Amino acid sequence: MAGYEYDLVITNGVCVTAADVASYDIAVKDEKIVLLAPSGSLAGANAEKIIDAEGGYITPGGVDCHVHLEEPAMFGKGSSSDTYETGTRSAIAGGCTTIVGFAPQQKKEPSLLKALADTHARAKGNSFCDYGFHMMVGNPSPEALSELKTLSENEGITSLKIYMTYAALQIRDDQILSVLLAARSNRMLTMIHAENGDVLNWLTDQLESKGLVAPKYHSTSRPTILEAEATNRAIALSSLIANTPILLVHVSDPGATLRIRQAQTAGQPVFAETCPQYLFLTRDDLDAPGFEGAKCVCSPPPRDKASQDAIWTGLRNGTFTVLSSDHCPFNYDDAEKGKMTCITAENPVGKFREIPNGIPGIETRLPLVFSSGRLALTKFVEVVAANPAKLYGLYPRKGSLIPGVSDADIVVWYPEGRRDITITNEMLHHATDYTPYEGRTVGNWPRFTIIRGKVVWDRDNGGVVGEKTFGKFFKRGPSSLGRIWETAQKQGAFDVATL
Amino acid sequence: MAGYEYDLVITNGVCVTAADVASYDIAVKDEKIVLLAPSGSLAGANAEKIIDAEGGYITPGGVDCHVHLEEPAMFGKGSSSDTYETGTRSAIAGGCTTIVGFAPQQKKEPSLLKALADTHARAKGNSFCDYGFHMMVGNPSPEALSELKTLSENEGITSLKIYMTYAALQIRDDQILSVLLAARSNRMLTMIHAENGDVLNWLTDQLESKGLVAPKYHSTSRPTILEAEATNRAIALSSLIANTPILLVHVSDPGATLRIRQAQTAGQPVFAETCPQYLFLTRDDLDAPGFEGAKCVCSPPPRDKASQDAIWTGLRNGTFTVLSSDHCPFNYDDAEKGKMTCITAENPVGKFREIPNGIPGIETRLPLVFSSGRLALTKFVEVVAANPAKLYGLYPRKGSLIPGVSDADIVVWYPEGRRDITITNEMLHHATDYTPYEGRTVGNWPRFTIIRGKVVWDRDNGGVVGEKTFGKFFKRGPSSLGRIWETAQKQGAFDVATL
Amino acid sequence: MAGYEYDLVITNGVCVTAADVASYDIAVKDEKIVLLAPSGSLAGANAEKIIDAEGGYITPGGVDCHVHLEEPAMFGKGSSSDTYETGTRSAIAGGCTTIVGFAPQQKKEPSLLKALADTHARAKGNSFCDYGFHMMVGNPSPEALSELKTLSENEGITSLKIYMTYAALQIRDDQILSVLLAARSNRMLTMIHAENGDVLNWLTDQLESKGLVAPKYHSTSRPTILEAEATNRAIALSSLIANTPILLVHVSDPGATLRIRQAQTAGQPVFAETCPQYLFLTRDDLDAPGFEGAKCVCSPPPRDKASQDAIWTGLRNGTFTVLSSDHCPFNYDDAEKGKMTCITAENPVGKFREIPNGIPGIETRLPLVFSSGRLALTKFVEVVAANPAKLYGLYPRKGSLIPGVSDADIVVWYPEGRRDITITNEMLHHATDYTPYEGRTVGNWPRFTIIRGKVVWDRDNGGVVGEKTFGKFFKRGPSSLGRIWETAQKQGAFDVATL
Amino acid sequence: MAGYEYDLVITNGVCVTAADVASYDIAVKDEKIVLLAPSGSLAGANAEKIIDAEGGYITPGGVDCHVHLEEPAMFGKGSSSDTYETGTRSAIAGGCTTIVGFAPQQKKEPSLLKALADTHARAKGNSFCDYGFHMMVGNPSPEALSELKTLSENEGITSLKIYMTYAALQIRDDQILSVLLAARSNRMLTMIHAENGDVLNWLTDQLESKGLVAPKYHSTSRPTILEAEATNRAIALSSLIANTPILLVHVSDPGATLRIRQAQTAGQPVFAETCPQYLFLTRDDLDAPGFEGAKCVCSPPPRDKASQDAIWTGLRNGTFTVLSSDHCPFNYDDAEKGKMTCITAENPVGKFREIPNGIPGIETRLPLVFSSGRLALTKFVEVVAANPAKLYGLYPRKGSLIPGVSDADIVVWYPEGRRDITITNEMLHHATDYTPYEGRTVGNWPRFTIIRGKVVWDRDNGGVVGEKTFGKFFKRGPSSLGRIWETAQKQGAFDVATL
Ligand SMILES: [Zn+2]
Ligand SMILES: [Zn+2]
Ligand SMILES: [Zn+2]
Ligand SMILES: [Zn+2]
Ligand SMILES: [Zn+2]
Ligand SMILES: [Zn+2]
Ligand SMILES: [Zn+2]
Ligand SMILES: [Zn+2]
Repeated sequence: MAGYEYDLVITNGVCVTAADVASYDIAVKDEKIVLLAPSGSLAGANAEKIIDAEGGYITPGGVDCHVHLEEPAMFGKGSSSDTYETGTRSAIAGGCTTIVGFAPQQKKEPSLLKALADTHARAKGNSFCDYGFHMMVGNPSPEALSELKTLSENEGITSLKIYMTYAALQIRDDQILSVLLAARSNRMLTMIHAENGDVLNWLTDQLESKGLVAPKYHSTSRPTILEAEATNRAIALSSLIANTPILLVHVSDPGATLRIRQAQTAGQPVFAETCPQYLFLTRDDLDAPGFEGAKCVCSPPPRDKASQDAIWTGLRNGTFTVLSSDHCPFNYDDAEKGKMTCITAENPVGKFREIPNGIPGIETRLPLVFSSGRLALTKFVEVVAANPAKLYGLYPRKGSLIPGVSDADIVVWYPEGRRDITITNEMLHHATDYTPYEGRTVGNWPRFTIIRGKVVWDRDNGGVVGEKTFGKFFKRGPSSLGRIWETAQKQGAFDVATL
Repeated sequence: MAGYEYDLVITNGVCVTAADVASYDIAVKDEKIVLLAPSGSLAGANAEKIIDAEGGYITPGGVDCHVHLEEPAMFGKGSSSDTYETGTRSAIAGGCTTIVGFAPQQKKEPSLLKALADTHARAKGNSFCDYGFHMMVGNPSPEALSELKTLSENEGITSLKIYMTYAALQIRDDQILSVLLAARSNRMLTMIHAENGDVLNWLTDQLESKGLVAPKYHSTSRPTILEAEATNRAIALSSLIANTPILLVHVSDPGATLRIRQAQTAGQPVFAETCPQYLFLTRDDLDAPGFEGAKCVCSPPPRDKASQDAIWTGLRNGTFTVLSSDHCPFNYDDAEKGKMTCITAENPVGKFREIPNGIPGIETRLPLVFSSGRLALTKFVEVVAANPAKLYGLYPRKGSLIPGVSDADIVVWYPEGRRDITITNEMLHHATDYTPYEGRTVGNWPRFTIIRGKVVWDRDNGGVVGEKTFGKFFKRGPSSLGRIWETAQKQGAFDVATL
Repeated sequence: MAGYEYDLVITNGVCVTAADVASYDIAVKDEKIVLLAPSGSLAGANAEKIIDAEGGYITPGGVDCHVHLEEPAMFGKGSSSDTYETGTRSAIAGGCTTIVGFAPQQKKEPSLLKALADTHARAKGNSFCDYGFHMMVGNPSPEALSELKTLSENEGITSLKIYMTYAALQIRDDQILSVLLAARSNRMLTMIHAENGDVLNWLTDQLESKGLVAPKYHSTSRPTILEAEATNRAIALSSLIANTPILLVHVSDPGATLRIRQAQTAGQPVFAETCPQYLFLTRDDLDAPGFEGAKCVCSPPPRDKASQDAIWTGLRNGTFTVLSSDHCPFNYDDAEKGKMTCITAENPVGKFREIPNGIPGIETRLPLVFSSGRLALTKFVEVVAANPAKLYGLYPRKGSLIPGVSDADIVVWYPEGRRDITITNEMLHHATDYTPYEGRTVGNWPRFTIIRGKVVWDRDNGGVVGEKTFGKFFKRGPSSLGRIWETAQKQGAFDVATL
Repeated sequence: MAGYEYDLVITNGVCVTAADVASYDIAVKDEKIVLLAPSGSLAGANAEKIIDAEGGYITPGGVDCHVHLEEPAMFGKGSSSDTYETGTRSAIAGGCTTIVGFAPQQKKEPSLLKALADTHARAKGNSFCDYGFHMMVGNPSPEALSELKTLSENEGITSLKIYMTYAALQIRDDQILSVLLAARSNRMLTMIHAENGDVLNWLTDQLESKGLVAPKYHSTSRPTILEAEATNRAIALSSLIANTPILLVHVSDPGATLRIRQAQTAGQPVFAETCPQYLFLTRDDLDAPGFEGAKCVCSPPPRDKASQDAIWTGLRNGTFTVLSSDHCPFNYDDAEKGKMTCITAENPVGKFREIPNGIPGIETRLPLVFSSGRLALTKFVEVVAANPAKLYGLYPRKGSLIPGVSDADIVVWYPEGRRDITITNEMLHHATDYTPYEGRTVGNWPRFTIIRGKVVWDRDNGGVVGEKTFGKFFKRGPSSLGRIWETAQKQGAFDVATL
């Protein structure tokens, strides 16, 4: 690109970061943001490419740290409909420039490193956007835990995910403590899926014994108290391990939210994530005719309107640190690895226990929330880009717009009022045969998605213009959000004798 | 006893019930209270025996519904030092006229009825006081749960106890739900020992791996958050089963107390018990020289002074419904079935994990609390006699002083200021070789204990004057405390589909 | 009555006290209960009069400690429609055997003793039932407060009432502290009407400025937060005066209830009262056609259904200590001293600000609550008789059934299922021209009301058969409820320097 | 400055905003920030002045929105020791580039505009830094409230302050509602000093009546419950006015903090401020020998260590939006307008009631908090600069570092580890004769303070190098923090009929 002063200039945009909303121009060179300058001042710059934002908003690229791709059957019978290729293609079309997926260790595997290697193999050369991995710990064996040091110090894996439910993944409270202790020693963040698995299984048995197996009973089998109870338990366990930081993933319930808030009020390093499904769907969406409700079967299930409001409030008042997609896609009309695997002669509208748990959403996350009008724009950027980057050790390369420091990962939105877009699955870029948001209208959409200075999505000219070999794996450092390690540091190493 | 109008008259006493404190006389005939009359008016009655209370307080006999006797090893290595004979002998000497013990089903036994029969065999003809049994459910098999109907309808067993800890007894959350559901259908009350067993085992492992095995680490291995967490979970589980009534036993922690209080504030049928060890002992008592601390090893362990105050407050404001002894005695200097079984060459001050969990207290319960001056006398009678009788279906025969209705189970106390008594193990009547309250001074003690009109304890003239064949088994009805079944009734049978 | 062993015997009843429900007979002599004996055993006694209760319930006579009679205009424009004569006549017809009315000191009066003397003059020889007085303190001048010693020690006045609203009565926070301090020194209980008067006046001004003056706006002018705020403030003030005991009167709001509960949870001596209007009426009752809503104008106003449920829960879980009528009667169709005083040419449906605040209810209190089926019977007796007697220093003469001690103040109810009674104002015995409960059906009613052994109400034979000269003034002692003075005692005299 | 491309370049610094910490260079032209560029890239720029930060932190200039200057006696007997000149001189020496002072309306003045004009007269030409005013409303007369429209629309006054204490300023709850309603209509933010004035006066009377008048009793007269109560009341009042936004100033008490947190948890627009005195001083500082404690007399008074920790936690978890100085200076050794005005022959150690309430702190605010190590740097910038600017309508010109938009208000700190500075009053630039932080050591201090591109403080070369004519008055817009007006907007105008 010799000859040009800049590789790219974006002029005439209103830039939004986690702190500021203001008009200024951005120049990019060698994959990095290199200059922020007064609005319009770079309109005539010597740049290979100049984008006139026409007054539209500019945000850092979305960072989606809860994405399931190409995973084996773990959450029911099916397996992911999206590969790294199709998932990341969908990501960039929705303004997402970095994802953190999961490297799943199965119960039968003693080692995490093997699972990591396998995941690398799946992703390498197949990602349209930058990426990293969380380790999903299905078997916290001594061997597995001993590998955390290598993972965090050499492999750039600085976060773990554990489950309090799902037969394939559920671990007991004592195992959780072992994970938390090892994570604390290695400055890794532990993500916790908090639902009481024993209880939901019992409820599912009860429902099945009464023949209540239609998709809507998925919601019945997971009452909110399940989530609040497990959340309370997870917080109690983390407090025992000298307040090691945890993140409660995909929180849906006001009761769980309140419990998290109380921990934060007391100064505990307890963080929380929510997802669009808890803001835009409700329990009623599972009660669609026939088997249709299966399209919204995820865990926890969407709740009611009042819960939606409580979750929005939690986003606004800071209870939720991040808003992720929990993209966990399964085809609907697919009897081999999709939602319909659970349909049999005996159960013509399926059997909710066997419906693969999860919904697609990586592409719709940003447009839905951006257009909702329910978050200040700075808060929007904070929860979808800046905080995820900080929380998961990608900052400051990702999640912000800092000259000389940040990768030029940028979304250019349409000028406000320009577009009303009705979501259809046809327009999306995943390999999944439906979207739970079919028919919803949003007021804006990423016009350009730019990764390390390269336009990979140009909605009006070619759509996906990036390549699946472009995305790079990122070794992540320890979480750098606020003073997340402060309590741990102050207390020193965990010492059981002081309890 | 022909010829006498009354078998017994007690004159000149100040009678205390759960509602009233006032001077009046009591006449007894054919095992029942038959008359309440103005103070002094029966002084010259035609009675076989007249007791002049000399202005001392008269209370209903103590009802102690948490008593472990002649149980096999379940809470560690040892087994009960008290038989039904020695335990109930101790009971009457401490003013207790009815106990409810446990009929323990072991994990390997599928049936409850067998366990009940065995327990009957142990108690029959060996009890100085009246008695009943709770079923201790170690294995909630379908067979066991199917027997609840028989137990409640025919056998007079209307309460169950389950454990969230102890290898020999711990059941999982789904099993707890099965128990709660079966209990609800049969109008049985479920008592729950709420400590997170998985977590305390993990902590114990950690402590042992550092060689921290002295008795005081028993307390370290069971931080309060364990109890608060399990309490929260138990309440969540009971709320799922359409608010079936539960009782949290031996609550020691202010956090657990607060959680219980919140449930009661919301109108849930959640009840709670505490015990003298949480009012009179602290964590420091486990930190005695050598192995001495083992004398106070029970679960949950005694906490700190602030916790004691919180528990007293909980008694006064009604959070606690009953105050029981949790008499669970093991000899101290006994390497075969007592506390010292855990002493080995390798562990000369023992290994707390193996110390049998429990302390004696059936005889000291009433004197300690009565003399404390920290409860109104009506509240004292409420929590040690009236409420236990109501909660466990013994009322109105037990726990009150109602003419024509109540058994003449009565304690006559010394006139106030008459006695200062220093507790020594020598003066107690259990078969256990120590008391954790050795050396404490109390201001009063039961002077006479009367069961069904018969003096069985006459402190100044013969001490234990009852016989071990006198105590009768009581078939208990369903709990009749307040409106305990109201929520359940209003909701009708549990219906999973409505969750 | 010579010649008879007993003046009165009640046989075949099911007696209910605050602790017990059981069948036994009662004998009465010289105004006192003198014997409790097995059911039926006194059927053939040598008694001047024998009542066969036919299996109906027997309760202690109702004690209503919140009654306004013959008061001047203080809560709006009107004045009481009931005199001591008509009010107490109504009381006995509703099963109430003792009332505590108010001796109102007006703002302009410096002395309380004068107000007391005036009230004595109104009541003396004009009361069908026994009675006492609270001092209503409108002007806490040094002179007034210096009289508390005389009031409590010589005059048998051991409780005060103060107001945080009403122009005629409202006192400021500093004045409240002065009252609380003086009350504490004299062991007097302070009753507090907790509504923020400044705020409701402001809201009333706002409503009036928009012409919104119909009765229903009375409710609008007093949103629940007003009550919760004032309740919080009252509790804060009492905590400052070394936790001197207070009673929040007529609590209607779940938020206020919660605040009270929190204080109780923390062990503060904070007590609370509620009234039938918050259990049986709602805000909708104020929105009747025309001026009819004025019939339900009282303060605080009735709330919504959810609030009713919360108040019932508060009764059941012990948050509320007493349930009083707050009988504060004004005629409806009375333009001189009743509700209609506020109707003018300009305001044809009245002006809610000037509607006298209060409703009649002394006669309906017991039947409504007894028949509701929402309280255990022991709890019913506790909150309508036993606790009021204890709280206001009338116990044990009033509020219980203790031989040799309690006055024979007794209500005999119809056997269950015998009567369905539709309430009409015509059947009531106050001098007020309406009841807010017109048309409601209750399942039971006091059949006999007995005061000090004398039948004063015989529903089926003569109705009111007592005399207005029969009721006696009672000098009350200090509150003897539970350990109400414990905190104060333990802390010693209030010492500002220790704050 | 013709000829230079930039007026000023700062190179080699680590820039901190509310969102980011990263190394980059800043260029300034015509009073604005005009370029952000990679670190070092502007080292050789064509600039009139180049500052090499040597790796030190760069922050936006401090915005201190709680500053009392040249005010008459309102908080006791004295009057401000600092004029606009001396106060703003002190400000810039401490890194503060904008202040918002108070335009005080006295009780006897009906108009706010007059008070504003007077304040303008005092400040004009006398301010080293930029400034604005809050209106301090002592008399919310209809006239005054009618002026809010002019104030907000024409005069750039978009915030009010009201008091719940101080004889000269205290307004009643109904007056508060009037202010809140008028403020809401004009999109003005209301700041509330929340202490219960009636109660503290009463307590002061009590203390004085016992001769307890030494400075330390100032703390005794203002127990924390006073503040928590008033805070609760203020929040209740704001909720009544359709959730109009309020800010609780100078919060010191954990109880008040919790109440604020609960409101935020519920989504109410309730904001809070704290100050260095609640982070660095305690109650013990008022208990110095002789009259020395008067140096720390401010209201609320500093609390205890546990409260300090709670306030730090509240800063970290977002409960506090801003951290201001509440610079309210009075000379100590000054019997005419300082602390010693209250010393008389009769009261040789003064009389705390008359001690002017307030302490100096404008210069020490940033160094103390920056050096504390207890806040993440982004959080530091958020609470001392970005949020104050947003909350008070100064953003984005103040409080951030946005090219083309933000004024070049910048602080350059020393490289970390370079300086240990012991605070003495001698080194400070106010006109007050003491600092409460005398002798404390801080690890850093503003090296350069730059306002609109001009260096006004150069610590190592001349110190204060700005001029008192440089500071400009700023007309402020409505608060633009987050979605502060959202609730109000959604509800539309306040409508009393909907309560
Ligand atoms: Zn999950
Ligand atoms: Zn997931
Ligand atoms: Zn147990
Ligand atoms: Zn036990
Ligand atoms: Zn009232
Ligand atoms: Zn009243
Ligand atoms: Zn202030
Ligand atoms: Zn101030």
